[in-house]
Amino acid sequence: MKILIINGPNLNMTGKREPEIYGSETLDDINAQIKAYAEKKKCSALFFQSNCEGAIIDAIQGFDGDGIILNAGAYTHYSYAISDALKMKKCKKVEVHMSNVFAREDFRSKSVLSPVVDGVICGFGKDSYMLAIDAVIGR
Amino acid sequence: MKILIINGPNLNMTGKREPEIYGSETLDDINAQIKAYAEKKKCSALFFQSNCEGAIIDAIQGFDGDGIILNAGAYTHYSYAISDALKMKKCKKVEVHMSNVFAREDFRSKSVLSPVVDGVICGFGKDSYMLAIDAVIGR
Amino acid sequence: MKILIINGPNLNMTGKREPEIYGSETLDDINAQIKAYAEKKKCSALFFQSNCEGAIIDAIQGFDGDGIILNAGAYTHYSYAISDALKMKKCKKVEVHMSNVFAREDFRSKSVLSPVVDGVICGFGKDSYMLAIDAVIGR
Amino acid sequence: MKILIINGPNLNMTGKREPEIYGSETLDDINAQIKAYAEKKKCSALFFQSNCEGAIIDAIQGFDGDGIILNAGAYTHYSYAISDALKMKKCKKVEVHMSNVFAREDFRSKSVLSPVVDGVICGFGKDSYMLAIDAVIGR
Amino acid sequence: MKILIINGPNLNMTGKREPEIYGSETLDDINAQIKAYAEKKKCSALFFQSNCEGAIIDAIQGFDGDGIILNAGAYTHYSYAISDALKMKKCKKVEVHMSNVFAREDFRSKSVLSPVVDGVICGFGKDSYMLAIDAVIGR
Amino acid sequence: MKILIINGPNLNMTGKREPEIYGSETLDDINAQIKAYAEKKKCSALFFQSNCEGAIIDAIQGFDGDGIILNAGAYTHYSYAISDALKMKKCKKVEVHMSNVFAREDFRSKSVLSPVVDGVICGFGKDSYMLAIDAVIGR
Amino acid sequence: MKILIINGPNLNMTGKREPEIYGSETLDDINAQIKAYAEKKKCSALFFQSNCEGAIIDAIQGFDGDGIILNAGAYTHYSYAISDALKMKKCKKVEVHMSNVFAREDFRSKSVLSPVVDGVICGFGKDSYMLAIDAVIGR
Amino acid sequence: MKILIINGPNLNMTGKREPEIYGSETLDDINAQIKAYAEKKKCSALFFQSNCEGAIIDAIQGFDGDGIILNAGAYTHYSYAISDALKMKKCKKVEVHMSNVFAREDFRSKSVLSPVVDGVICGFGKDSYMLAIDAVIGR
Amino acid sequence: MKILIINGPNLNMTGKREPEIYGSETLDDINAQIKAYAEKKKCSALFFQSNCEGAIIDAIQGFDGDGIILNAGAYTHYSYAISDALKMKKCKKVEVHMSNVFAREDFRSKSVLSPVVDGVICGFGKDSYMLAIDAVIGR
Amino acid sequence: MKILIINGPNLNMTGKREPEIYGSETLDDINAQIKAYAEKKKCSALFFQSNCEGAIIDAIQGFDGDGIILNAGAYTHYSYAISDALKMKKCKKVEVHMSNVFAREDFRSKSVLSPVVDGVICGFGKDSYMLAIDAVIGR
Amino acid sequence: MKILIINGPNLNMTGKREPEIYGSETLDDINAQIKAYAEKKKCSALFFQSNCEGAIIDAIQGFDGDGIILNAGAYTHYSYAISDALKMKKCKKVEVHMSNVFAREDFRSKSVLSPVVDGVICGFGKDSYMLAIDAVIGR
Amino acid sequence: MKILIINGPNLNMTGKREPEIYGSETLDDINAQIKAYAEKKKCSALFFQSNCEGAIIDAIQGFDGDGIILNAGAYTHYSYAISDALKMKKCKKVEVHMSNVFAREDFRSKSVLSPVVDGVICGFGKDSYMLAIDAVIGR
Repeated sequence: MKILIINGPNLNMTGKREPEIYGSETLDDINAQIKAYAEKKKCSALFFQSNCEGAIIDAIQGFDGDGIILNAGAYTHYSYAISDALKMKKCKKVEVHMSNVFAREDFRSKSVLSPVVDGVICGFGKDSYMLAIDAVIGR
Repeated sequence: MKILIINGPNLNMTGKREPEIYGSETLDDINAQIKAYAEKKKCSALFFQSNCEGAIIDAIQGFDGDGIILNAGAYTHYSYAISDALKMKKCKKVEVHMSNVFAREDFRSKSVLSPVVDGVICGFGKDSYMLAIDAVIGR
Repeated sequence: MKILIINGPNLNMTGKREPEIYGSETLDDINAQIKAYAEKKKCSALFFQSNCEGAIIDAIQGFDGDGIILNAGAYTHYSYAISDALKMKKCKKVEVHMSNVFAREDFRSKSVLSPVVDGVICGFGKDSYMLAIDAVIGR
Repeated sequence: MKILIINGPNLNMTGKREPEIYGSETLDDINAQIKAYAEKKKCSALFFQSNCEGAIIDAIQGFDGDGIILNAGAYTHYSYAISDALKMKKCKKVEVHMSNVFAREDFRSKSVLSPVVDGVICGFGKDSYMLAIDAVIGR
Repeated sequence: MKILIINGPNLNMTGKREPEIYGSETLDDINAQIKAYAEKKKCSALFFQSNCEGAIIDAIQGFDGDGIILNAGAYTHYSYAISDALKMKKCKKVEVHMSNVFAREDFRSKSVLSPVVDGVICGFGKDSYMLAIDAVIGR
Repeated sequence: MKILIINGPNLNMTGKREPEIYGSETLDDINAQIKAYAEKKKCSALFFQSNCEGAIIDAIQGFDGDGIILNAGAYTHYSYAISDALKMKKCKKVEVHMSNVFAREDFRSKSVLSPVVDGVICGFGKDSYMLAIDAVIGR
Repeated sequence: MKILIINGPNLNMTGKREPEIYGSETLDDINAQIKAYAEKKKCSALFFQSNCEGAIIDAIQGFDGDGIILNAGAYTHYSYAISDALKMKKCKKVEVHMSNVFAREDFRSKSVLSPVVDGVICGFGKDSYMLAIDAVIGR
Repeated sequence: MKILIINGPNLNMTGKREPEIYGSETLDDINAQIKAYAEKKKCSALFFQSNCEGAIIDAIQGFDGDGIILNAGAYTHYSYAISDALKMKKCKKVEVHMSNVFAREDFRSKSVLSPVVDGVICGFGKDSYMLAIDAVIGR
Repeated sequence: MKILIINGPNLNMTGKREPEIYGSETLDDINAQIKAYAEKKKCSALFFQSNCEGAIIDAIQGFDGDGIILNAGAYTHYSYAISDALKMKKCKKVEVHMSNVFAREDFRSKSVLSPVVDGVICGFGKDSYMLAIDAVIGR
Repeated sequence: MKILIINGPNLNMTGKREPEIYGSETLDDINAQIKAYAEKKKCSALFFQSNCEGAIIDAIQGFDGDGIILNAGAYTHYSYAISDALKMKKCKKVEVHMSNVFAREDFRSKSVLSPVVDGVICGFGKDSYMLAIDAVIGR
Repeated sequence: MKILIINGPNLNMTGKREPEIYGSETLDDINAQIKAYAEKKKCSALFFQSNCEGAIIDAIQGFDGDGIILNAGAYTHYSYAISDALKMKKCKKVEVHMSNVFAREDFRSKSVLSPVVDGVICGFGKDSYMLAIDAVIGR
Repeated sequence: MKILIINGPNLNMTGKREPEIYGSETLDDINAQIKAYAEKKKCSALFFQSNCEGAIIDAIQGFDGDGIILNAGAYTHYSYAISDALKMKKCKKVEVHMSNVFAREDFRSKSVLSPVVDGVICGFGKDSYMLAIDAVIGR
């Protein structure tokens, strides 16, 4: 099973910003743990990060595997273009957030991506990604 | 570790209604699987279901354990009373939905419970509950 | 033909409150007339009243007959939980109100139940129930 | 007793359009049945149909009888002019719709006529008109 | 000076409806007084009434004089078509209402005609028309 | 007959600002003409101008005559305090504006004073005041 | 191929009003050019204009051909009755406007007709109609 | 004088939750003080608490005394059913809150109960109840 | 203990306007009773009334005592300037209204002052002020 | 004549996604036909596609020709940056969509580009582009 | 060059309230520094402060110089009367705030003054005034 | 001191578009003047421009200096992604606009960046940048 983990704008700064929300590990640290977890589950995990909306769309379109796990950062709240890219993808799609977006600023409680993914997982820090891998695999 | 799984209004009809959304297993079937899964994870799972808002509040108030997993059904969208009950609880709290509530009717995309729980998991059928157990346990 | 007539919160006070809107007969008086009318139409009418949202849901779930006539009182305007219970019921469902809810306070002109019933009848006092029996039977 | 049944825009196409909503009988077929039903109830039924808002107002103003049964089609949702015409009429007034307007497009759930009629009946196909005749007569 | 007084839907019932708002004189009575008043002011007054939106537009388009005084009744609140007809007219245009529309139902406080007329006069019963004649003439 | 003409904020600058909207005569010039007009009509006209909301309320409360003609300038759109002062006054009350407020910025189309006056006259430049005198006197 | 071109309220004044928006040719001039263009394309073009909502509905209902090209003028923005009439028509339907309605007043950017036609063309003056003929014919 | 003090959902947890808002005394402690205060004022105080909307309605309906003091907790913000129950009660009715609900989350600033009670007292901790007793007694 | 009672716009007319809402005693009568009540409670009561927003702010800023009781009249609903003045004051602050503002016009149910005071008391006529004195003193 | 055809996000997937909306031809297939059509009309057509908002702006800024035909995909609904780029361009500008955007999800009925282009064409599949070429050329 | 610095309601309390937002210097301290700065820049600075909306309007109207620097405090958010006064002034006008109003309560992010001034400067404490002096002078 | 000046979409066209709003100097001309001004103030100014949202985020993330001056063009109004990037930056941050954005189209009066910067300066043409440099330096 091949799973693509996409991180959107500013998530490359994870571990360097607002540690009270995201924890102090860097994205590379977290990706390494996700990779190890995926391998234990017999999956191969690929990683992509970009601050650019267009590059995220390119990554979604170009992926040919079993599941996409997407933390689109702030694009979550207005990128209908990413939403359209996800909609045409037939693999399993999971939207994740490390923080509980519903407990933060108002604008973060609306996601234009949620209606086109299979499911949403948020609020469990880096565990959100691991849970998403389990969700893609299913039981 | 002691975890309470609460199901709200109409979830007692699971497996008997709209199987294209919730699947055809009954709530008892699902609970049995959750129980087994929890045991494998060294947790003890307790179950409560009610169609009554007040009874759900009583259950939340009366629980003395490590985690609450709550699928509040339609109360999710307007029960500030349940929200208040959750808010005062110090254990881990996870909101779950079997369907992807963001891909259904408009009123289902607003949850008054999300701001007071630790995290939200939705869209993975009965797996949503299992993932929630993993989320309560953490890594 | 078996028809369940459900009356929601405060309708047990009919005849004791605001007679200019609901008339001065008590709910028991009215139920007796509905029963007689139903019998004339070769139907058997059952009656249920509760001020509790959860109890109304229980009553809807537990009914196994041909038609439900529901005056949900103020729950009409916000109980998505009752709406979900009605939605999964396959029998004929009619929403009734004794007063013309559209000519009263603003909040009464929105019903969350209307989209999931077969039809709506309001404004004809106790006649609303009799008309609903005819509507269930059809022509 | 003299009752006027008014049908508004596009209802002259009944039986020729969207039969899954309105059934396949023509308006003339339905009027014949209403007429027969009214006669059985010792009423005389008059019929008027127009696609023109002004003509419907003229018909309301010019009628001198006991009850008006009005299916104003799409004018239901914005014709304050028809609403004003109804408001000044002292006879019994019933708004009817064959389909359940609350289960269709959003704009159909708001009626500017409902606040000025005695009652509303919708969702029972052609039976809506017969029920309205009973409602005008009363019990 | 030639002035056209247009009255819209239901104003032909003036004197026959809600006398507490409009007074008990008929539209003909009032028109006679307006005519006399206009003559005293050396103006010729023409009168037109219709319940039909299209006919009012035709009347506006077809008029070739110095001023239009328009009481469009309920069309005031939604007829962008009448608004467009007024907009292209180069003569003096006055919107009038006999009652104070701002002190009645909410929907009556919005006029889609006001932005395209020279001025508005409301609340003075039949005097509103006389004041409008003075307004057309100017000082 | 004693009539008080009140002008609110910035109207003391009339004739010195935006002459394309208000004309180039000063408020004193206009008041002189109003005074003359009132005298011709056998009325005595009093004048008051202030930029201060409280002072306008004082003026309204302290006036003991037959009519108040009020151009409240921008206070028209938000001074519920002036509205309350007008509401308790039993004399004839007319709201006037020199410009057509409905054809200007959006915020000018809402008046919190209109619901508590007898009538409204706007759009006729200084003539608006004269027409208001006629409106107070009646016919 | 038989195509009906319908023009709504105030379009009979084309060439006589606001030439900076619509150009100075009359509707008859434009219709003549459309007719010629249609003939070159082997189509027969029929023309209808009315200021009356009801008459436009009658025209739509009564047409038995291959395509309807509709410029409904201001009815575009509120006539759900015309929308219903279009919806039941099975031929090709194109909504046209000579001006770019999205660059004018706010209320003109909402069309209640657009959801029920095949396509929309606006902003190209009289060319909008010719393009619509090509759109009906298809490639 | 007989006064019923009703406390709604989660108020049974008073003294156990968020002490910075409600203080650390339990509801029983507070009720004892209210009882003593009432006795000093020659009133008899009755107490009722429930997390269930329907049970609160039952309590209101069943009470036969001089005053109801209601702290409906979160039901304050959406229970039109409790509002209807209060509306039909003829005794003195006071809505109370211990915290200043207007200084907390947005949803807490709207009460559906306020329009049907005699008065509202909030923000004075347990004193709110004592003040309400004085308010019921009057001066 | 020194308490300032501030009354805002139009409250100087108390007893002279709408007696069905405010009672027929004048503000002086009421103030005398408040003074007596305060003295009984060993407090000294000061009184201030103005129709001017700025003067009320001056009074708040200039006061150096233990409590402010403010009935800001219509300024309650829009004076963010008075709200700012209150916010910086460290003494006890109580907002009062004689009528139940939540049972009157819509605009009266929003107070911009409530979020910055300690508590709110409304609906008990002149008793509202006495209760506020007790609230300032506390128990 | 030189015309630039710009396609925005996800349109590179045309023919590979949701063929019931866009048809099964690829963007290259369609571009070839547009090119041929343009040549027949003596125009030279240039093509640009990108998923990146910034790249689309660069393309608009860098183009020096007679017309821009833009299908901005989902950027249509929120890219004020593309709107600003178009606004400063003096050539002919046409917004196109293959599907009827007004008959799809709500968010697709608002375009932030429409107010700054010459005209809009939507709903005719690939023909929308050909019609746009005719619209640029004019008649 | 003559510049008037106007400070609105509650700014006379600067240095005495919420020092974390405004700093602890008094308005007199700050004015002294502004005066010195202005003199260094060869300008003469005048100062005016009032809590009264009307007095601020008087000050604006009465000023005859080169620039107005206005910190209107809470009037910023609703005083259309001050906005009208500014609009008619032909000198340079700068709106300033010491705090970043966009990072505080919601109501502070809307200014009714901004559309009628030349520019806005906020968030730099007392420096906001100095920057405004530079802005009036220009480069 | 090191300051980064970032210009967003379409600002590279400054001096080539709408000179009545932005003036006729090119961005290079303006940057040269800012550079000179900064040097006079003993600062080093760096410059970055891009039409790409992602590239602007990269530039913010990668900058390691004392102040960021950002004119984000149209991204100002919707780029929560740029807002997040700014939020994590600890240096001084100033939002600037050359025009007064509050006096232009409605959508330009809302900035999603303002809540996360230190201050905002707009409306002074190229001077806005110089004032921002002074604001970063402080006094």
